[in-house]
Amino acid sequence: MVVASQSLQELCINSIRFLAIDAVQKANSGHPGLPMGAAPMAFALWDRFLRFNPKNPKWFNRDRFVLSAGHGCMLQYALLYLTGYDSVGIEDIKQFRQWGSKTPGHPENFETEGVEVTTGPLGQGIANAVGLAMAEAHLAAMFNKSDAAVVDHYTYAIVGDGCNMEGISGEACSLAGHLGLGKLIALYDDNHISIDGFTDLSFTEDVGKRFEAYGWHVLHVPDGNTNVDAIAAAIEAAKKVTDKPSLIKVTTTIGYGSPNKSNSHDSHGAALGVDEVAATRKELGWEYPEFEIPQDALAHFRKAVDRGASAEAEWQQTLATYKTKYPEDAAVFERMISGKLPANWADCLPTYTPESKKDATRNQSGATLNAIAGTLPELFGGSADLAPSNKTLIKGGGDFKKGEYKNKNLRFGVREHGMGAICNGLALHGSGLIPYGATFLVFTDYMRNAIRLSALSQAGVIWVMTHDSIALGEDGPTHQPVEHIASLRMIPGLIVYRPADGNETSGAYKVAVEQAKAEKPAPTLLALSRQGLPNLAGSSIEKAEKGAYVLSDSDGTPDIILIGTGSEVALCVDAAAKLTAEGKKVRVVSMPCWEMFEAQDAAYQESVLPKAVTTRLAVEAGVTFGWGRYAGSEDNVIGVNRYGASCPGGVALKEFGFTVENVVSKAKSLLG
Amino acid sequence: MVVASQSLQELCINSIRFLAIDAVQKANSGHPGLPMGAAPMAFALWDRFLRFNPKNPKWFNRDRFVLSAGHGCMLQYALLYLTGYDSVGIEDIKQFRQWGSKTPGHPENFETEGVEVTTGPLGQGIANAVGLAMAEAHLAAMFNKSDAAVVDHYTYAIVGDGCNMEGISGEACSLAGHLGLGKLIALYDDNHISIDGFTDLSFTEDVGKRFEAYGWHVLHVPDGNTNVDAIAAAIEAAKKVTDKPSLIKVTTTIGYGSPNKSNSHDSHGAALGVDEVAATRKELGWEYPEFEIPQDALAHFRKAVDRGASAEAEWQQTLATYKTKYPEDAAVFERMISGKLPANWADCLPTYTPESKKDATRNQSGATLNAIAGTLPELFGGSADLAPSNKTLIKGGGDFKKGEYKNKNLRFGVREHGMGAICNGLALHGSGLIPYGATFLVFTDYMRNAIRLSALSQAGVIWVMTHDSIALGEDGPTHQPVEHIASLRMIPGLIVYRPADGNETSGAYKVAVEQAKAEKPAPTLLALSRQGLPNLAGSSIEKAEKGAYVLSDSDGTPDIILIGTGSEVALCVDAAAKLTAEGKKVRVVSMPCWEMFEAQDAAYQESVLPKAVTTRLAVEAGVTFGWGRYAGSEDNVIGVNRYGASCPGGVALKEFGFTVENVVSKAKSLLG
Repeated sequence: MVVASQSLQELCINSIRFLAIDAVQKANSGHPGLPMGAAPMAFALWDRFLRFNPKNPKWFNRDRFVLSAGHGCMLQYALLYLTGYDSVGIEDIKQFRQWGSKTPGHPENFETEGVEVTTGPLGQGIANAVGLAMAEAHLAAMFNKSDAAVVDHYTYAIVGDGCNMEGISGEACSLAGHLGLGKLIALYDDNHISIDGFTDLSFTEDVGKRFEAYGWHVLHVPDGNTNVDAIAAAIEAAKKVTDKPSLIKVTTTIGYGSPNKSNSHDSHGAALGVDEVAATRKELGWEYPEFEIPQDALAHFRKAVDRGASAEAEWQQTLATYKTKYPEDAAVFERMISGKLPANWADCLPTYTPESKKDATRNQSGATLNAIAGTLPELFGGSADLAPSNKTLIKGGGDFKKGEYKNKNLRFGVREHGMGAICNGLALHGSGLIPYGATFLVFTDYMRNAIRLSALSQAGVIWVMTHDSIALGEDGPTHQPVEHIASLRMIPGLIVYRPADGNETSGAYKVAVEQAKAEKPAPTLLALSRQGLPNLAGSSIEKAEKGAYVLSDSDGTPDIILIGTGSEVALCVDAAAKLTAEGKKVRVVSMPCWEMFEAQDAAYQESVLPKAVTTRLAVEAGVTFGWGRYAGSEDNVIGVNRYGASCPGGVALKEFGFTVENVVSKAKSLLG
Repeated sequence: MVVASQSLQELCINSIRFLAIDAVQKANSGHPGLPMGAAPMAFALWDRFLRFNPKNPKWFNRDRFVLSAGHGCMLQYALLYLTGYDSVGIEDIKQFRQWGSKTPGHPENFETEGVEVTTGPLGQGIANAVGLAMAEAHLAAMFNKSDAAVVDHYTYAIVGDGCNMEGISGEACSLAGHLGLGKLIALYDDNHISIDGFTDLSFTEDVGKRFEAYGWHVLHVPDGNTNVDAIAAAIEAAKKVTDKPSLIKVTTTIGYGSPNKSNSHDSHGAALGVDEVAATRKELGWEYPEFEIPQDALAHFRKAVDRGASAEAEWQQTLATYKTKYPEDAAVFERMISGKLPANWADCLPTYTPESKKDATRNQSGATLNAIAGTLPELFGGSADLAPSNKTLIKGGGDFKKGEYKNKNLRFGVREHGMGAICNGLALHGSGLIPYGATFLVFTDYMRNAIRLSALSQAGVIWVMTHDSIALGEDGPTHQPVEHIASLRMIPGLIVYRPADGNETSGAYKVAVEQAKAEKPAPTLLALSRQGLPNLAGSSIEKAEKGAYVLSDSDGTPDIILIGTGSEVALCVDAAAKLTAEGKKVRVVSMPCWEMFEAQDAAYQESVLPKAVTTRLAVEAGVTFGWGRYAGSEDNVIGVNRYGASCPGGVALKEFGFTVENVVSKAKSLLG
């Protein structure tokens, strides 16, 4: 590698800095301080190490770069522009933080090619990076041969003090250390400033020592503002340690170059101001007008285009060899990275009849996961230390651990939030992996931001959430979800399924897998019962896919429609039988998924829930909030609008009114 | 202190073990393994160190004990029973995990006297303990005199591997180390087992070294199953280190004494089974029938009653001295710990007129907090590194830090979840403190379980959440809350306020403070604007307290009711003016709080939202989910049912339809 001269390096680094300074100033909004301080480390990484192809941002074997300190996104946009990505031109940079621009206020993978994951909520990015590195390790173990390594890249992240304060980063990094992810390298922008001021206000721990405790290889570059060679040497050293992830603490000055605002939170989250921008130009000897990059710098950066093309060409050569020598593996590999599913994959999904064993949907979920795993090698997931309860173990899959990266079962430990962001990273690796993450439904509260980000960033994750109501019983109100199903339904883009039996569970997985592989992938969350449920007459995978369907019906127009989800559908069926015996015309609608039902056409929706039939009763063991949409009013719902209680599950259901008698009685009162 | 003989100690420790074993077996549900392994450390602590008064569980100056590994709650119930609390008798233990019992499946402070905080969701307890220790440090600094220390107790916690894997514990413990909370002592039940199996599946970090990195004093007792003296010596040593919290890693065996299930996850979360219970009796030489405690052991435990009475009497003496010598301080202290508010405290709340400066409610919140702080010394809180944005700094309050515990401003760092549980601990210290914790509304997703637990466990916390809609602008969809307000409204027991102006902000704080001091305290969450808003004609503190009220009205029965919350109320007012000019009869209802409105009587509710007026339009910059309750249908709502976008806030509001024109147009279409 030919290293640029000292002066050229400075020119390049200042190019990054002033693109950030000027864009933030033009928008009068944003975070100039991080790009100004982290420009040298970013330059060292992108100029000397990072393998990427600007003209093919999705080149499979690229190194992954994550700006975990996402507020510093102008750093990333500057690098994308300078190195020649088509996704970010100088006009885009001038549109920083404007409506419809490709340069939003935090990095968004769904807006800007070259951005791998969506960051900004602190700590998510480094946890995503752990997921990306796990994906690489897993795929390499699955596919690589001694003479053809088709999967072989590093994952780099830039993290800030904020990321390191967040619990999610601790969770993910502890796991990364445990797994010995040697190709994960994090650069810690140690600038001693957060929004409140100097980090000594709240953050005086020894971060390096903590990462050593996690099992990481830790290095320190004390002069990160100026010593590009030292940063590069540290990255080089990090790459040489192959059995541990590396943290390179790079001590920098936030807002470096700003005479009055550097080393202060004043440069963190606001434009420097016209005068200070001018003073910074003077301080750093920057003679160029705003948004103008000196030709020498641009030309140097743009060498990345040829470098990237060569790197990809070399990999294509490796892939060609691989295809020749290992055609079967290559076929799977190419199918996976193309995002396609095998034809008829869904034939593997279990089906059930009313004679099938009464069972909990968590058990049926376990059976389905195992069936899918036998057909789709890209299924890859696990539980946050609740595998025996969540029923998520793939039999014979082995545990994914240090040196055994081919194995299929992820053991996240009691780290829900980390698990969430890791799953997002696995999905956004873009290699066709279908990750799943599991815990108790109530603990979606521990990982809600990661679930939200899976929907926002189009990460096709399957969230397997068991113990989905007060019916879990004895563990009590801290473990009994009440508001959770409703609160998850309102996350835009998240598909929430609460299946009633085995067929609906299979249907939920059919949707989940297909959505994970869609052009714009969507995550699916499954809410599954702890307790056994009967397999219903009239359920099917196809019907469940529609989100809601008529499970049983009356002759002619119904007097009342009972709408149930999950474990309460069977209750509706039993209540309907009693009501029918008393001469009422009753339709039962099973509604495992609001979102899929709303995606159906109006005619289908009308066929299930005719507008003319206004007497309706919904039954769901959760809050009634929002059920007015289908039941007409929240008063027409049997639900749970308080906390649960510790007692056997059957007792809880009875005490909270989930009995045939109560459903019948409420239905009669609605029928008048 | 007279230490019990070795054989008596064993008898006592086995008494704890078998109460747990038998109760779990009777319930056929629960977690016997932790109590069996942790009984020696619990005995050492409760027998030799913990100061408490079983006959007055709320004695102010008691040491606080937190079982962070809450699933092991039978340990705590056994201790409460054995040491003579009236709250847990042997019959209660036989009712473990049954409907209506005092011995639910995880410790619940609101069910069982002697339980300080509600645990079970892992990591919450140790973070609560950090809050308890901070409360002690703060109150001691506020009130203690060199000759009269009325606040002087330790906070002890038992934490498990699960707690230590959770990010929330890392956040809270990093802060505890930073703050140097010397009177916080955590016993780490290092049993190497979690639900999935041996912790080496996912958790191989060096926990002790991590805590050292946080600034903790770390000790290790390798033979924690048997060596009570070593545990006691470690606690003694921990107490001697006064400038750092201490972690005592006590290596134990889960399910100790069970011949076939010890050191296995089989003893973690299920009853041992009749045969194994018998085998364990044999193994440990326990000859007593179930639920029977040998008299020697019970007599020894019950010495706690006299010990506790003496300890409290001694403290009462100190308090008497204090009252004599420092009557003014004593008056404040006694008022605070009585939970009462000073008469007329609410006179401090700012009021506004339409002529007052247009301002963001986050700024008005800041002014209100400062006003309250001048009147109520118990106000004590801060932000998760967003103080300048959340406007939560108490001017002149100083920063609460090591050695400066009298200061008022908490600097939580970027640790939302830890902040949440710490605030719960501050509230549940029971000393009248009114804690507040602040971040951006979207980051309630990082701390949702702690918010839920504040409601469940009756912790009177004020959650100050700013930047409450897409109107925050440039930071983009990762920072723009959309579903959050609705999703928080559905948490049972949480009061959610979204004030429209200064008076409503003051009203929200009036409710929040009073709820914090209620007999059954409730937390209040405030959703506050980033952007400036006009002060409305017709708003008042009193009206805002009712949750919803008629802000402006038509002559006679309205044709339409516009319902707004927060920043959208002013929009409704402007739209109403236009509609009125066009001859429509329009009522505007400002609805800052659903929960308080629903707490009003039916007549008041009818006076605000008459059933007969069915043409309604709600306007709120969030999901429409659930608004059918007041608007008749979610179709009658102008809301945001997708993710936001990065752009200036005004542009976002316009693009998403929050304009007078759109409200007028939608209103007209509803009017037909």
